[in-house]
Amino acid sequence: MNVYAPARQAAWNKVGKRSLQFPSRPAIVSTFTVCGPMEGKGPLGRNFDTVMPDAFYGEKRWEKTESKMLRESISHCISRAGLCESDIDAIITGDLLSQCIGSSFAARDISIPHLGVYSACASFAEGLIIASMSYEGGFFERAVVGVSSHHETAERQFRFPTELGVQRPPSAQWTATIAASVLVGDGKAQTGTDGEPPIYIRGATVGEVIEMGSKDPFDMGTAMAPAAVDTISRHFHDFGMNPKEYDAVITGDLGYVGNQIAADLLESKGYAVRSRLFDCGLILYDRTSQDVHAGGSGAACSAGVFCAHIAHKMRSGEWQRVLLAPTGSLHSPTSYKQGEAIPAICHAVLFEAV
Amino acid sequence: MNVYAPARQAAWNKVGKRSLQFPSRPAIVSTFTVCGPMEGKGPLGRNFDTVMPDAFYGEKRWEKTESKMLRESISHCISRAGLCESDIDAIITGDLLSQCIGSSFAARDISIPHLGVYSACASFAEGLIIASMSYEGGFFERAVVGVSSHHETAERQFRFPTELGVQRPPSAQWTATIAASVLVGDGKAQTGTDGEPPIYIRGATVGEVIEMGSKDPFDMGTAMAPAAVDTISRHFHDFGMNPKEYDAVITGDLGYVGNQIAADLLESKGYAVRSRLFDCGLILYDRTSQDVHAGGSGAACSAGVFCAHIAHKMRSGEWQRVLLAPTGSLHSPTSYKQGEAIPAICHAVLFEAV
Repeated sequence: MNVYAPARQAAWNKVGKRSLQFPSRPAIVSTFTVCGPMEGKGPLGRNFDTVMPDAFYGEKRWEKTESKMLRESISHCISRAGLCESDIDAIITGDLLSQCIGSSFAARDISIPHLGVYSACASFAEGLIIASMSYEGGFFERAVVGVSSHHETAERQFRFPTELGVQRPPSAQWTATIAASVLVGDGKAQTGTDGEPPIYIRGATVGEVIEMGSKDPFDMGTAMAPAAVDTISRHFHDFGMNPKEYDAVITGDLGYVGNQIAADLLESKGYAVRSRLFDCGLILYDRTSQDVHAGGSGAACSAGVFCAHIAHKMRSGEWQRVLLAPTGSLHSPTSYKQGEAIPAICHAVLFEAV
Repeated sequence: MNVYAPARQAAWNKVGKRSLQFPSRPAIVSTFTVCGPMEGKGPLGRNFDTVMPDAFYGEKRWEKTESKMLRESISHCISRAGLCESDIDAIITGDLLSQCIGSSFAARDISIPHLGVYSACASFAEGLIIASMSYEGGFFERAVVGVSSHHETAERQFRFPTELGVQRPPSAQWTATIAASVLVGDGKAQTGTDGEPPIYIRGATVGEVIEMGSKDPFDMGTAMAPAAVDTISRHFHDFGMNPKEYDAVITGDLGYVGNQIAADLLESKGYAVRSRLFDCGLILYDRTSQDVHAGGSGAACSAGVFCAHIAHKMRSGEWQRVLLAPTGSLHSPTSYKQGEAIPAICHAVLFEAV
């Protein structure tokens, strides 16, 4: 072992109280998405790489489908970059199923060191943060961050089996059936592109767990909005940035209800961000023609929208700087039945295409 | 933002195929444990910091107890180091409950950025690895890694509610009721010690998910042993070390059955490690007087034994170099009922007290 012990005074890549910077510019080298038929019919449909013909995708159980989707998205993400499994230092995965079986069963067929993360629907951001820290620290040269969610597995896990046909209130969101993976590595070594600018991960703001007393699992937007506002406002503060300097600030899956609350709260804190505040749950589906109530949600909602929408806009030069702030609702069926409120978290990742 | 873009060739802190080194020597600054009455009566009983008088600890539900234990262990771990919440850059937590509610509900009362990890009973090692990488990369100067498990919550989550009185086979293990937290930071800045040598985290080997067809959730030792052998042998290989150079190689919670399998398999691979191969699940309880069948298990089994046993032996100078290899069984009740085998993972962390 090559060992030295330099004098350390502080965390030099930490910015402000809760933010991190990545001066070595880890980049999104490649992406791959697998989505369900409904997402395929949505506004981003033709930007998804694989659209499944049905919710089973050749499996007999939805949980197996979800694992298969994630496994495929990881494998194709690697091969799209012109690489193979042995070139990848780690896979970092997350999903919503109990004991994260979507991830674990996807990873068992992949011979790459594995780290499992759980921040519910903010897991994509947590994975990107860990991948970027490990890149910056000289640990993982290339890591794949992959997350998955599946409407049918999530509904029977968190609420009711969909076969029951339980009516959902207007504030309920629709868990997206998507698996999305991104390869984080050296942008300059990027292969397979045709002159498009790479997307760099330049910074991040790590979320705290925030619970404001909201208890309704059919209204997660209200439960998660305070966490989103906390992290986004902390991000602006830590980096000394003005909302106008971002082309878009995109929350994970607050949906219609949470998006309004977040915009109001951010405005009350002095951040005039409403005109550029978007939400992945509102981008993924067309709410006028698709019956998703308040919008999309799910661990892969933000990841899918990143791959199929944000990355496209950044590669085309339309957007240069984007803050993606996936939000996670950290309850479980057990905590809900025990009368507990819903804690939430939001991690924000700063992307730049310059 | 202070931004530069140095030329990067490779992951310089990566060792061999799957291992990492931490030349800046992140250290275990402080530890704190809360355990159940049964663990308090075991061989390590007087080394635990808080022994609860009963399994409820003033709460009405075991899940709330588990969160309370974890919250207390995190808070006391920080104050024992002479620090307060604002001194800590991140908490990294994991537990076994669905949607990791043990962790999330503990974290909602703590104003520190939060990262959730899931490697089942190997979560402690995953947390230490992420904390060490982030320390080395200049992101988190001090991070608390905390994990929890509770016998009653785990049994009703994974197998049967204990009130049913279902008989368990001899290969079954006993989920430990423990919450354990460690503060990872600068060893030289350590406070509150009386001249004892700090414990440094010098390296780690990240596990791959391995599934060998074992399907019995009452015999997790057999399911996890191949993952332990894979990671431990890879560790020796990557670092070019001989088992004799370690004072102890300690698996997480293979129990009696898995420990024998691991020793046999390692020997068949040419690693004569049997005489120094221990298991946290066998250290935690006295199997002759305590009815734990094949030994202890649980996300906090390895963390509790680290704090109450390994750290003591290292601080007293008895052990200088220890490899701790917590193992995790990545199944869920859903995957088990769907007839799936049990994937497993093992992450190894190298501690040195020199």
